[in-house]
Order: sequence, then structure tokens, then C-alpha cells
Amino acid sequence: MKERIITEARQLFVNYGIRSITMDMVADNLGISKRTIYENFENKKRLLKSCIDAAMNEQRIINEEIIRNSSNVIDATFVFIKNSMITLKRINPSFFFDIQKYYPEIWNTTIQKNDERNFNRIVSLLNQGISEGLFREDINVEIIARLNLEQFKLLSNQEIFPETKYSMLEIFENIIINFVRGIVTKRGLEMVDTYCN
Amino acid sequence: MKERIITEARQLFVNYGIRSITMDMVADNLGISKRTIYENFENKKRLLKSCIDAAMNEQRIINEEIIRNSSNVIDATFVFIKNSMITLKRINPSFFFDIQKYYPEIWNTTIQKNDERNFNRIVSLLNQGISEGLFREDINVEIIARLNLEQFKLLSNQEIFPETKYSMLEIFENIIINFVRGIVTKRGLEMVDTYCN
Repeated sequence: MKERIITEARQLFVNYGIRSITMDMVADNLGISKRTIYENFENKKRLLKSCIDAAMNEQRIINEEIIRNSSNVIDATFVFIKNSMITLKRINPSFFFDIQKYYPEIWNTTIQKNDERNFNRIVSLLNQGISEGLFREDINVEIIARLNLEQFKLLSNQEIFPETKYSMLEIFENIIINFVRGIVTKRGLEMVDTYCN
Repeated sequence: MKERIITEARQLFVNYGIRSITMDMVADNLGISKRTIYENFENKKRLLKSCIDAAMNEQRIINEEIIRNSSNVIDATFVFIKNSMITLKRINPSFFFDIQKYYPEIWNTTIQKNDERNFNRIVSLLNQGISEGLFREDINVEIIARLNLEQFKLLSNQEIFPETKYSMLEIFENIIINFVRGIVTKRGLEMVDTYCN
């Protein structure tokens, strides 16, 4: 039951934002009583937290699979780009807006918890790319990894990129393409050009 | 007299940080009385503010001169890189640390005031580069300009890049080289490679 509730709530939050979804709506959509929901989740905040954790776990598994199934880092990067763009297209911008405005605690904890894990993953990908001869040897791997993490945080920063002016999809594309082009070798660039065309 | 005090104080702040420099030291170094300083600047905060304003103005003039005297954007960028690295080498890291910790108001106002001006300058440089055939046509100029501004703010962000672990010079170099490589065309890249070698 817990998992069914999480799956349904995730879908609703992602489609309509968090603010506009009530516990009643989640219950109605599942054809269960509100009481059943409250037996599993103390309040909406707890439910949201569980949804985020589930999404993060899923994303982590997908990312690991992408890396495992790719023949090199640039292949992996472009599968990741394609995947992320499909995901971003599905998420209502209100979702990011609401979570930062109404649940900053959850947002900050999620970001922080993922920071170290993502940092290590990026460092390992950068090193892999260097040993494959696709990323430049003269980058400082740690600095570039931190830079990459911070750039992705900008994606949902409403002060820098207000959703009324910029689409997240376009910001994402510009950030990631610029980033990859910035670190590739000549051979890496040829592969990037092939993917971009 | 006001200008003499600003020039001397700037030098001391830049060399030793802000915290360790007293109004007495500025007076002593100029061979004037502390009273003369206080006749010109109400307090250390005001003096610091005037020093920052002077430095920002100077930097703006230098940047305009670089752009005017360069044959194309990539020339301009590499003169700017060289200039900035010389300046960064001269600044005691404590300077950035102290201003953010003890004078956050001055820091935030300075950053904000410069944001719009820098944004417009970067947008115009990006457009120039595109028309020169050196920057890619398919970048979103506004997004890339905002990205660039935010990256440079990371330079002095002690949470992301603590000065005990990373040198500002190395962070700067990684950020700017990565950024330029990310946006260049094939012809632009050839010029970048020549400069980097």
C-alpha cells in the first residue's frame, strides 16, 4: 500500500506541482480513504519526502545502468542527456518552484545528500573520460566536478533563471552541451559533433 | 587626500586582507594622522566601500580597453585571462574571505550592482563572437551569459571551493578555459588551442 501511495502521489506532484495536490486528491485517485494514507504517512511533507527519496533512488539506478551499458563516457553522457530531457519535459515547473518555496528543508536535505554521491560519480566519470582519451588531461578533475554540480543546481534557481523567462529544458541543454564541449579532446569533440548533428 | 588614502588602503587590504588592517596602520603608512583619515571616511566600512568602488571602476575601464584593442573576442578573452590571473595572484585570499564574512552588505551590493552591467557586457561579447564566426550560433546567449556570471561568483565561494583546498588561480583557469572551449566553433577552437599552447 505504501508503495502504491508513493507511486500515485509522485505522478500527481510531477504533473501538477505540490501546492495544488491535496491528500484527498491522492486518496481519490487511488480509490482509497484518506485515513489509509494518514496511516502510512503522518502528513503531506512526509509523503513528499518519500516520493523524492523514491525518485532519487530510481534516478541513481538509471544512471548506473547508463554508465554500465555505454561503450565510453561520451556515449554515456548523451544517453544521460536524452534521458534527462525526457524526464524534464514530463515535470511541471511548479514542482521545483513549490518544493523550494514551501518545503525548503526537504529540498536542501535532498540536494546536500546527493551532493557528495554525485560529486564522486562525476569525478569517476571524468577520470574514465581522461583514460579513454576523450576528456582533456589538463583539467582539474575536482574543480570541474564541483563546477558541474553547481551548474546543475542553477537549473532550478528561480532567481537566476526565472521559469517565466527560461525553459528548464533549454537551460539544461545549454549547460550540459557547453560543459561537455569544454572538457573534450579533439577525438572527444568529433564524437560530440556526431551526437549533436 | 581622499584618493591617496584610498590608494594606500586598497594596497594594504589586497596584500593582507581586511581584518588585519586597522585605520591606524593606514594612517601610519601614509605618514598622516588618524584624524585626517576619519575626516575623510567616517569608518573603516566606508573606506572599504570606497576602495571597492575604485577597484571596480578601474577594472571596468581595463575591460573596455581590452575589448577595444583586441582584433576579435578570443584575443580579448585571452588578454582578459592573462590580466585577471596577474590580478588574482596579487590578492591575498583573506581579502575575499574577510569581505564576505565581516562585510557581507558591501559584498552583496557590489556583486548585485555589477551583475547587470557584466551581464550586458557578456551578452554583447557573445553576440560579437557569433558574428565573427568564433562562437557557436546555437548557444542561447542569455542563458550562457547568466551561466558565466554565476560561475565567476563560485570563484570566491568558500563553501564550494574552500581556499584551504583550491587556489583561486586554478579555479579561475579551469572555469574560464572550460567556458570558452564550450562555446567556440571549429575555427574558434583552433585559436584557443594556439593560445593554450
